Amino acid sequence: MKVALIMGSASDFPVVEQGLKILQEFGVESEVRIISAHRTPDQAVAYGKKAAEEGIEVIIAAAGKAAHLGGILAAVSIVPVIGLPLKSSALDGLDSLLSIVQMPKGIPVATVAIDGAENAALLAIQILALKYDQLKVRLQEYRAKMARQVEESDSRLKQRLQQ
Amino acid sequence: MKVALIMGSASDFPVVEQGLKILQEFGVESEVRIISAHRTPDQAVAYGKKAAEEGIEVIIAAAGKAAHLGGILAAVSIVPVIGLPLKSSALDGLDSLLSIVQMPKGIPVATVAIDGAENAALLAIQILALKYDQLKVRLQEYRAKMARQVEESDSRLKQRLQQ
Amino acid sequence: MKVALIMGSASDFPVVEQGLKILQEFGVESEVRIISAHRTPDQAVAYGKKAAEEGIEVIIAAAGKAAHLGGILAAVSIVPVIGLPLKSSALDGLDSLLSIVQMPKGIPVATVAIDGAENAALLAIQILALKYDQLKVRLQEYRAKMARQVEESDSRLKQRLQQ
Amino acid sequence: MKVALIMGSASDFPVVEQGLKILQEFGVESEVRIISAHRTPDQAVAYGKKAAEEGIEVIIAAAGKAAHLGGILAAVSIVPVIGLPLKSSALDGLDSLLSIVQMPKGIPVATVAIDGAENAALLAIQILALKYDQLKVRLQEYRAKMARQVEESDSRLKQRLQQ
Amino acid sequence: MKVALIMGSASDFPVVEQGLKILQEFGVESEVRIISAHRTPDQAVAYGKKAAEEGIEVIIAAAGKAAHLGGILAAVSIVPVIGLPLKSSALDGLDSLLSIVQMPKGIPVATVAIDGAENAALLAIQILALKYDQLKVRLQEYRAKMARQVEESDSRLKQRLQQ
Amino acid sequence: MKVALIMGSASDFPVVEQGLKILQEFGVESEVRIISAHRTPDQAVAYGKKAAEEGIEVIIAAAGKAAHLGGILAAVSIVPVIGLPLKSSALDGLDSLLSIVQMPKGIPVATVAIDGAENAALLAIQILALKYDQLKVRLQEYRAKMARQVEESDSRLKQRLQQ
Amino acid sequence: MKVALIMGSASDFPVVEQGLKILQEFGVESEVRIISAHRTPDQAVAYGKKAAEEGIEVIIAAAGKAAHLGGILAAVSIVPVIGLPLKSSALDGLDSLLSIVQMPKGIPVATVAIDGAENAALLAIQILALKYDQLKVRLQEYRAKMARQVEESDSRLKQRLQQ
Amino acid sequence: MKVALIMGSASDFPVVEQGLKILQEFGVESEVRIISAHRTPDQAVAYGKKAAEEGIEVIIAAAGKAAHLGGILAAVSIVPVIGLPLKSSALDGLDSLLSIVQMPKGIPVATVAIDGAENAALLAIQILALKYDQLKVRLQEYRAKMARQVEESDSRLKQRLQQ
Repeated sequence: MKVALIMGSASDFPVVEQGLKILQEFGVESEVRIISAHRTPDQAVAYGKKAAEEGIEVIIAAAGKAAHLGGILAAVSIVPVIGLPLKSSALDGLDSLLSIVQMPKGIPVATVAIDGAENAALLAIQILALKYDQLKVRLQEYRAKMARQVEESDSRLKQRLQQ
Repeated sequence: MKVALIMGSASDFPVVEQGLKILQEFGVESEVRIISAHRTPDQAVAYGKKAAEEGIEVIIAAAGKAAHLGGILAAVSIVPVIGLPLKSSALDGLDSLLSIVQMPKGIPVATVAIDGAENAALLAIQILALKYDQLKVRLQEYRAKMARQVEESDSRLKQRLQQ
Repeated sequence: MKVALIMGSASDFPVVEQGLKILQEFGVESEVRIISAHRTPDQAVAYGKKAAEEGIEVIIAAAGKAAHLGGILAAVSIVPVIGLPLKSSALDGLDSLLSIVQMPKGIPVATVAIDGAENAALLAIQILALKYDQLKVRLQEYRAKMARQVEESDSRLKQRLQQ
Repeated sequence: MKVALIMGSASDFPVVEQGLKILQEFGVESEVRIISAHRTPDQAVAYGKKAAEEGIEVIIAAAGKAAHLGGILAAVSIVPVIGLPLKSSALDGLDSLLSIVQMPKGIPVATVAIDGAENAALLAIQILALKYDQLKVRLQEYRAKMARQVEESDSRLKQRLQQ
Repeated sequence: MKVALIMGSASDFPVVEQGLKILQEFGVESEVRIISAHRTPDQAVAYGKKAAEEGIEVIIAAAGKAAHLGGILAAVSIVPVIGLPLKSSALDGLDSLLSIVQMPKGIPVATVAIDGAENAALLAIQILALKYDQLKVRLQEYRAKMARQVEESDSRLKQRLQQ
Repeated sequence: MKVALIMGSASDFPVVEQGLKILQEFGVESEVRIISAHRTPDQAVAYGKKAAEEGIEVIIAAAGKAAHLGGILAAVSIVPVIGLPLKSSALDGLDSLLSIVQMPKGIPVATVAIDGAENAALLAIQILALKYDQLKVRLQEYRAKMARQVEESDSRLKQRLQQ
Repeated sequence: MKVALIMGSASDFPVVEQGLKILQEFGVESEVRIISAHRTPDQAVAYGKKAAEEGIEVIIAAAGKAAHLGGILAAVSIVPVIGLPLKSSALDGLDSLLSIVQMPKGIPVATVAIDGAENAALLAIQILALKYDQLKVRLQEYRAKMARQVEESDSRLKQRLQQ
Repeated sequence: MKVALIMGSASDFPVVEQGLKILQEFGVESEVRIISAHRTPDQAVAYGKKAAEEGIEVIIAAAGKAAHLGGILAAVSIVPVIGLPLKSSALDGLDSLLSIVQMPKGIPVATVAIDGAENAALLAIQILALKYDQLKVRLQEYRAKMARQVEESDSRLKQRLQQ
């Protein structure tokens, strides 16, 4: 039960870290790596090819601008790849989003929102939960907790407005 | 090993069908349904809530325009939901893409390319392959077949240009 | 004569509050709630279904990113729903705008400008004024006051430029 | 109980007509007019100013490109104005959508989807239903009919796929 | 030889002022006014109708968001109207630009860059120069001065880089 | 009283011709030329430099894609340049529009709608009318004719709907 | 003096062929290949790595959607890579353009217009001309021929309009 | 072995300087100039025409907004021109990007990412390396250094996460 969190640059870590925290909260083992599709292409290809045998079951690939990291990892592996577009460019991440989500026929990358590291992690966990039943329970609890938080903020607002 | 293929309207079927064929080619059982997040919201909610216990392991939700189908199914289920944006609007599917991929924190939808039904199906199969080993072999074969097709078209083009 | 102001997250309140002030200025009763289409979908559906019988005559739904709140409320109620897109995402609210305004055939959401909370409230009041005549007078006064403010700022600028 | 359907050009009628049919189906009286904010600005202003006293309770304004019709009608009337952006330009209606929905503070226009004439009409009817109870029943029936149509297309697809 | 500088809101003045300075630098008389197409539509129409007889020879209309000011002035006058889109919205002025430049057939608005107040003024002066020869000389001098400034900054950079 | 209509390619003529017809209808002399900013840059510069002394009083420059024609003509002349963006590219003219309208400080190009050749011509005529009084009368007549056409199409639609 | 023309799919050839013709017209040897960054990633990497020693001096990489072909070839080679975005997607090539042009720091791809195969070839020739003087002469002739063609179409239009 | 770095305004230098540093690091002679396509068009044309005989082998042209600098230089020279779009406008450089990359058939401009000055310089060096073998070695070393930096940041992150 291991998820790889790959990012193209150390500067991406503050966003990616939000996803890492979710994985840790769910007790999912993770491997965090900085690998660049463009500056270290051989490592990217090699990582993707060995991911499955190294026990990686889901890959999260975070990249900005012309974001090819997810695509290249997906091209050399059949492990599900979640693409996390980053808002690191002049175009506020639209370039990154389109570079990731518009993958051509044959090699999908499961794309989440721009800078949506938490959702990338939650999606990885939902995927793993198909196989690891204990995650199902935790996901239900997480959902319930989120719902309670919404309800509590609803209550607090009501109180505040009544004063 | 069952995938749900849900679409908002019968007019979406020609696109969705390309994904259905992939699932059938891989021997993955599928359930194809027309459910609208907006015109039949109760059915959408009910479907999502019962999906897991009905044996659905991945949901593919195809919708155009302000595409909320994937989001509502994801909100009421922890089964992984793949969002398939459709090019059915004046804006060539950009509205649908953003309505699906930009899900807020907490409820991910794994988004694929606009009209990318084949990739939605392949992503579902890659996810299922974590649990069902026989799919791994088939995915490897599928990848090898795609590669051969590229190589054959490369050879044909070479011959054509040499004439 | 009651308007519901629903938002997806407590962080949306600073924008929504501008609309609340308008409603209060017009003496329109309001109910302010935090309900998330994605984190509390059951509450969203339940709220929409009971809105009419609870005396709600217009619903304002504020949400950012893939903004489904207005759509889901509109799907389960025939009370007019005003969608207020919020600029809370990397894409400056374009995603939210398209997620709200591009509703498919059958279920309209009356959309106003990104972060246009005042206009959402004024639209609600104009709708209510069809039924409640006293609001017509107040709307005319409000319009006249706005016109006077423009004229006064015009005069002030003229004076400033003549100095 | 009368809705005005105003469009900027005769060429807009094929889209607007879809909304007219909905109004007729609901038994709502309508007045259909061609008035251009730019080519007949005086008529536009005059129409907006007299709309309320002529018994118009909702105005639907359809226009393409730099679509100012809804804005100018809204500026001179407190009758709710529904803006219907049309896909009549090089930019597929994005210009029209933004020209309508991004109204500045003070004068709202309730915007629906590009070419969404049916939804413009349904929104008008939902607004009128606040005052005219008989429309509530018809809206519920309309919603139920739409839901049945989705269910029937779902059944037909199931049959087709089983053959 | 008089140019009207009209803006929709006092908050637009810091941008518009850059154009005013250009007009003053060229000795062109100007009239600066705050008139809103939406909050003071009657004044906008009245202003446009009387502009020619008041001696206005070019109108510059600055507005943001769904910017209709230029369009309405152009619709009621044959004086050339220059539209100045403002970056006052969530969408960085793209909404304003499209609302101004995409005017339908029959009523042109001469559009300049977003926040391009200087260019709006220079365009007005180039238009007036057709009739007022003294402006031609000043425009040539202005162009020469701009060229010199570029050349001087080129020289300064050369010196800086040689150190 | 002479307007230059310059386009970058013969394939642009069908659009430009719509503007030529307007000029002819108003009795304005025109010079129609194919000059490319990129393929015949010397001619473009030379044309711009001599335009004024050749009696050209307004230049209309039509171009698609990265449309620099208007900008280069404007850079070498103080004759007002009207930029006409063409929808000749993959991006439906958005590239052309931005290449023309977003001119930097100092050199304005008066931009009209994508493919808006009629409006380019009408704008040229409105500019000329500052100097040539006879055009004022014709513009008023043209506006009146347009208004009548709208009114007639309004009447025809009314009749059609009453049948 | 050899240029590689690589495309991701046989369906891209009709566009790419326009560039091939230019190369042939200039007497530049070319190698045309179908290699997919996603379906044949190993071949893409291997091709890029051996390109230089195989005598390839410029690579043209044509791809649509999330177009990574140019990026991966550029990542594994120091041969200049020209990226040719293709209009093969729902989004008219904007996704392809951004996926190619927005390359992160360190690995450039020289991007040309969407579907601009001729310009990709001409850019390759201009690059080769730095080293191969005979190409300089041919480029000058090609430019002169283009200029003559513009002048001839200008003459033909003049004649046509005089009739 | 000389590269020209041309920018439209002194305010562009902080971005352009990043490219200058790369050229200096590679020992490539450079000429840095401020020349505006619009404010000093004659100098731009003259510069482009003499570039080749002055020993310039690659031109980098940096400009924002309606960025015509690269296009005009490319139109008057067969030296390869690299276009560097700048994020200096309201539209975050999208206008600049499209003004540069969408060059019409016949005159290519090799476009890099918005504000991508380093990549513009690296592309120039890769082009020069076709002719100057010593640059090939340096490029290989630069690539190796970049790869090592990625690997080191990967190691540092690993250490940090293990603590």
